Amino acid sequence: MRILLLNPNMTQSVTDLMAEAGRAVAAPGTELVAVRAPRGVPYISNRAEALIGGVVTLEMLAAHEGTIDAAIIAAFGDPGLLGARELFDFPVVGVSEAAILTACMLGQRFAIVTFSKTLIGWYRDCGELNGLWSRCAGIFALDLSFADITSGDPRHSDALVELADHVVRDHGAEVLIFGGAPLAGLANRERDRIPVPIVDPVAAAVKQAEALLALAPRKAMQGSFKRPAAKPTGGLDPLLAARIEHREGRNQ
Amino acid sequence: MRILLLNPNMTQSVTDLMAEAGRAVAAPGTELVAVRAPRGVPYISNRAEALIGGVVTLEMLAAHEGTIDAAIIAAFGDPGLLGARELFDFPVVGVSEAAILTACMLGQRFAIVTFSKTLIGWYRDCGELNGLWSRCAGIFALDLSFADITSGDPRHSDALVELADHVVRDHGAEVLIFGGAPLAGLANRERDRIPVPIVDPVAAAVKQAEALLALAPRKAMQGSFKRPAAKPTGGLDPLLAARIEHREGRNQ
Amino acid sequence: MRILLLNPNMTQSVTDLMAEAGRAVAAPGTELVAVRAPRGVPYISNRAEALIGGVVTLEMLAAHEGTIDAAIIAAFGDPGLLGARELFDFPVVGVSEAAILTACMLGQRFAIVTFSKTLIGWYRDCGELNGLWSRCAGIFALDLSFADITSGDPRHSDALVELADHVVRDHGAEVLIFGGAPLAGLANRERDRIPVPIVDPVAAAVKQAEALLALAPRKAMQGSFKRPAAKPTGGLDPLLAARIEHREGRNQ
Amino acid sequence: MRILLLNPNMTQSVTDLMAEAGRAVAAPGTELVAVRAPRGVPYISNRAEALIGGVVTLEMLAAHEGTIDAAIIAAFGDPGLLGARELFDFPVVGVSEAAILTACMLGQRFAIVTFSKTLIGWYRDCGELNGLWSRCAGIFALDLSFADITSGDPRHSDALVELADHVVRDHGAEVLIFGGAPLAGLANRERDRIPVPIVDPVAAAVKQAEALLALAPRKAMQGSFKRPAAKPTGGLDPLLAARIEHREGRNQ
Amino acid sequence: MRILLLNPNMTQSVTDLMAEAGRAVAAPGTELVAVRAPRGVPYISNRAEALIGGVVTLEMLAAHEGTIDAAIIAAFGDPGLLGARELFDFPVVGVSEAAILTACMLGQRFAIVTFSKTLIGWYRDCGELNGLWSRCAGIFALDLSFADITSGDPRHSDALVELADHVVRDHGAEVLIFGGAPLAGLANRERDRIPVPIVDPVAAAVKQAEALLALAPRKAMQGSFKRPAAKPTGGLDPLLAARIEHREGRNQ
Amino acid sequence: MRILLLNPNMTQSVTDLMAEAGRAVAAPGTELVAVRAPRGVPYISNRAEALIGGVVTLEMLAAHEGTIDAAIIAAFGDPGLLGARELFDFPVVGVSEAAILTACMLGQRFAIVTFSKTLIGWYRDCGELNGLWSRCAGIFALDLSFADITSGDPRHSDALVELADHVVRDHGAEVLIFGGAPLAGLANRERDRIPVPIVDPVAAAVKQAEALLALAPRKAMQGSFKRPAAKPTGGLDPLLAARIEHREGRNQ
Repeated sequence: MRILLLNPNMTQSVTDLMAEAGRAVAAPGTELVAVRAPRGVPYISNRAEALIGGVVTLEMLAAHEGTIDAAIIAAFGDPGLLGARELFDFPVVGVSEAAILTACMLGQRFAIVTFSKTLIGWYRDCGELNGLWSRCAGIFALDLSFADITSGDPRHSDALVELADHVVRDHGAEVLIFGGAPLAGLANRERDRIPVPIVDPVAAAVKQAEALLALAPRKAMQGSFKRPAAKPTGGLDPLLAARIEHREGRNQ
Repeated sequence: MRILLLNPNMTQSVTDLMAEAGRAVAAPGTELVAVRAPRGVPYISNRAEALIGGVVTLEMLAAHEGTIDAAIIAAFGDPGLLGARELFDFPVVGVSEAAILTACMLGQRFAIVTFSKTLIGWYRDCGELNGLWSRCAGIFALDLSFADITSGDPRHSDALVELADHVVRDHGAEVLIFGGAPLAGLANRERDRIPVPIVDPVAAAVKQAEALLALAPRKAMQGSFKRPAAKPTGGLDPLLAARIEHREGRNQ
Repeated sequence: MRILLLNPNMTQSVTDLMAEAGRAVAAPGTELVAVRAPRGVPYISNRAEALIGGVVTLEMLAAHEGTIDAAIIAAFGDPGLLGARELFDFPVVGVSEAAILTACMLGQRFAIVTFSKTLIGWYRDCGELNGLWSRCAGIFALDLSFADITSGDPRHSDALVELADHVVRDHGAEVLIFGGAPLAGLANRERDRIPVPIVDPVAAAVKQAEALLALAPRKAMQGSFKRPAAKPTGGLDPLLAARIEHREGRNQ
Repeated sequence: MRILLLNPNMTQSVTDLMAEAGRAVAAPGTELVAVRAPRGVPYISNRAEALIGGVVTLEMLAAHEGTIDAAIIAAFGDPGLLGARELFDFPVVGVSEAAILTACMLGQRFAIVTFSKTLIGWYRDCGELNGLWSRCAGIFALDLSFADITSGDPRHSDALVELADHVVRDHGAEVLIFGGAPLAGLANRERDRIPVPIVDPVAAAVKQAEALLALAPRKAMQGSFKRPAAKPTGGLDPLLAARIEHREGRNQ
Repeated sequence: MRILLLNPNMTQSVTDLMAEAGRAVAAPGTELVAVRAPRGVPYISNRAEALIGGVVTLEMLAAHEGTIDAAIIAAFGDPGLLGARELFDFPVVGVSEAAILTACMLGQRFAIVTFSKTLIGWYRDCGELNGLWSRCAGIFALDLSFADITSGDPRHSDALVELADHVVRDHGAEVLIFGGAPLAGLANRERDRIPVPIVDPVAAAVKQAEALLALAPRKAMQGSFKRPAAKPTGGLDPLLAARIEHREGRNQ
Repeated sequence: MRILLLNPNMTQSVTDLMAEAGRAVAAPGTELVAVRAPRGVPYISNRAEALIGGVVTLEMLAAHEGTIDAAIIAAFGDPGLLGARELFDFPVVGVSEAAILTACMLGQRFAIVTFSKTLIGWYRDCGELNGLWSRCAGIFALDLSFADITSGDPRHSDALVELADHVVRDHGAEVLIFGGAPLAGLANRERDRIPVPIVDPVAAAVKQAEALLALAPRKAMQGSFKRPAAKPTGGLDPLLAARIEHREGRNQ
């Protein structure tokens, strides 16, 4: 099975990091096709950029349609997730949704730990959308930049572990999620230093995508996730336009 | 004061309809600058198209920045609203948010009435985002297409009035919102045939934009609605890119 | 348009303060008729007094009916608001409702900042009623009395600004509301010292009342906000009794 | 123990009906002192009248203070309940609160059945206040007037029983509450004709008041239910004014 | 009336403590039959043990059926409560449910104070079940063991009083519940040292059981609390099996 | 990997049905060990039986501990799930939790369809526990018995398909779950006759158990899912007692 690991960010090194985290847990027959966004921003960190990343996600899915069996949207907040589920016929999984759902099988109250306080408001909006907010013990962050966290400085890992420990002891978190693409793989490396289960969003998403592929649910033919009827477009990416206009077929 | 009435849809006739509904209630000093989307789809009717419309909204705001005092996003679901509030310094109001907030001053339980059942799932997602869902008595729809509703057939108005009446009598709605751009102006025309107050989303948004302009709240300098720091971009609309990269200035 | 700025408290100086805050934002054609309660308490600060203030509000509305186009209930907690909406035909707006709804257009999470801890429990009850509680980041208070806060001591403003700053930095508030009639006008004076938008409840209510007047929604003829049928009364204020008994007409 | 059964309505016959329903379940040592409102309306049926009834309740409590051990506010919606709990030192119980809390020990989902559709909106507002709304299966009503329901016509009882049966079978109600003072005693008379437990609000309130008297909780000395500090008043009922001004003593 | 005070724990001394707390408030005609679990664990302190305690509760109820008029499940979390309500015809009350419902008549926001942090997660799960969680100001705990708290060391009472005081002042609790069987009676002993009303769960449950007995609601004959139809069993406690198989009768 | 497919019911034929549904989707390296309850009832259908089934589940897990890598609790409502997660070190998944979490990746609003109306109240209680209730469009049931549904009569499948279709068209369900062990495998057989994706709870649970095994989260060493400290027991199943008393070891 070919699963697209779609990074809506443009940074190759983070894409590589996520591919590594995903491949570490992928089943034998799973091929992860890791791609970064051809346009947009290096790293999505607010609602405006998530919107742009969402459209870039739809464009990337249109470009890979017919060559993949499922897709993972690999940026916290899952830009474009629900739109992708309407527009395409294959299963689409988001890393934050997958992390939250998986965490719910490991404890009653999860917390999200990330590297930058500027992400908290936006992450909270994302989290409320999936209806599981009553089980969230909070979102907790260091005060680092994207440059800091991708620098490889080991003190940042230590600080995240310390924050995680505080969240468990003082805020009742029973399971943790490390949120933010640059933290991919961290859950696995630091698992012995944190006293509760930790979920890596990319790893969780790979397993959820495999699960959906095995369950093979049909595409909705009724209701709000039915593929929209053909509609004219103007000024859009050609492949995305073709999909919306029901003129696709290049890859099929 | 110049307020941009930004239609994220491409259809000029609907833009005209909304401009008319907005101008009917605008204060003497308000100039409504009505523009339609230069790209996208004729009429947004699902989550995927709302995402595209959201980015087009950001592009249109970037294009008009410096020439306007506030903006109204004139499509139900308010595509791009929160991202716009981060990225720009002027007030931005969405028609569905404005309608819902205004309705809350006219009754304890509002209902949304629209023309097509295919909109219900997406509208509900939108409505849940603003946190006022506990006051919603439901979303109710006829089974018409965009072509039907823009045809001017008077039987459609009659059917909407009949549906509205049913919602009031059998579902406890104390105030109604006619949702969907093609219904702009309907609330005003049919107000005497419906036994509770009705809110026209565009009209409500014009008054809310004027209210924010008079209150003149400062732009957030902290928290998740602070303007994001400058960041490189690739492959984006030039003016939107300039805004994100802090290189804007053309209109200022 | 004549809008009654109805202070359910008896203190004239606070009424004057609120009238000043309201007039600062009123549109050219708006006349604010500011009146204080003829009976009750100097300053409502709990549920029992809010109940008394609610009935005094109904009496004051009955006294002014026919001479005004809309009314603002100018005490936090909006005593009598829903009853007024049933009983009278003109739009009625409450300052806390108006502040909360307006704040929702300026950020996803608002906080209320006030001067006395004794107000918190009651304010919270009020806030829960409007169904937007999921967007409240908390109610925060100094420990001052009504006498303190009306003394004009500039140290109190400084303390409120400091508290506001703390709420933004440590509790995720993206927009603030200064609650409590003695704080009317403060939002405007201190706007540059606080890093997020601030909403003045009286100013917000004036703009919302103007908005409703422009939208001219009809009075409900069905449902729980329909004017109640005529009913006998005993021992009530004569004008309020006349309104309930459908014998009013003095001012019309 | 003397428990005041305070009817905020003026109708003596309904007061008698409630006294009878209460005495049927009162413990041997309990004396129920049933009084009707000296002013207000014959029967509270909306938010405006509930506000008036709430102040009348405070006045009646001030008048009986010192001669009673606890009080029951005997009108659905419990007018004045929270204010009474602030202002007075003895336990105060409301019939709708008591009914809802008691119903929660008899099933997971309760429904409220009443005689008039005009009560539904207001009852719903009341119910949401107590925070147990997630357990309410709905409010269901006939379309009768106060005059109808107090006429003693046996067809009305039959219609209520039929409605109750429908609510159990089709709406998942596991326990019922007959709401509205004129229905006092009905739960007991019709218990064998309805297939789930039914709670009579007055009977439940008598037992809850007795329970609180036996538990003898202290009056709050901190927080929002602490008795408010003395405060001047103007134009209020003399005994209520005395209580607010800390000048009471007549009955003590 | 004979009320079974059923302790799902095996510790006799705690059973005695609870019997004493219950008898202190019981009405003259009430006989409390206090029994401890014949099997299980000394003190239930997590979800697994609560499950075991729940089945032991059903067995104990089957053993006493026919000799009692009502039952109280006397362990925080109310193990087996809803199952007991399905299976048996007499009223069954749980101590934590009774405490929470009673607390709601004494303040708008209750807090639970207990002796061990290990109980918090499980208590929270229990509390969410009853649908009143929006009124909970939190669960707060010392860090003591069951052995500590049953040692009679007066410093532990002092520590609980100090924690209670903190919860009132800093977390807005308007009424407190001392949770955990070893704290039975503490509310009464320490009532003067804590500035808000305190509810003793066992005492509250005794009064609620008496209330239900006086109200005499019928057993559900429809819906999910109707007694389940006869069904074969295997390997169960003989009396519980008899009840499920509709072969009971020994005590009747 | 060996995954225990633990049926808390005693019926072998239903166990076989579930094993078949699970094996149809299991990965190559997965061995499903299907076992039925050695004691309890043939088919759990209410809260009392779920409690019994929960303890039997703990006993069965204690019996298989050391011989399995993960376990699935294969009865709707997931009896014993949270207790099992505390007590044991391997991952434990429940079929209803797995179905609901999986459904959330296939639509925004799921509905549960089952065979007997008597299950609705209990299923609803279960569903509320997992905090995803806001995404449930309802629980819908035929009026069949356990004997009916296990009879193999094809008219029952037709009736379920018809009910499913109604739920999609009239209640906004975007994804369905067939709940109840006798319906295992039905989702797969009828997928083409129902216009939205359907989730088979057993199949979903197998994939979720495999996902957790691949992710290999650590056992909680802090918080409420830490294994409880050793504690004496009395009268319990020997292996379960050994696990609680920390004397286990037989299988390890």
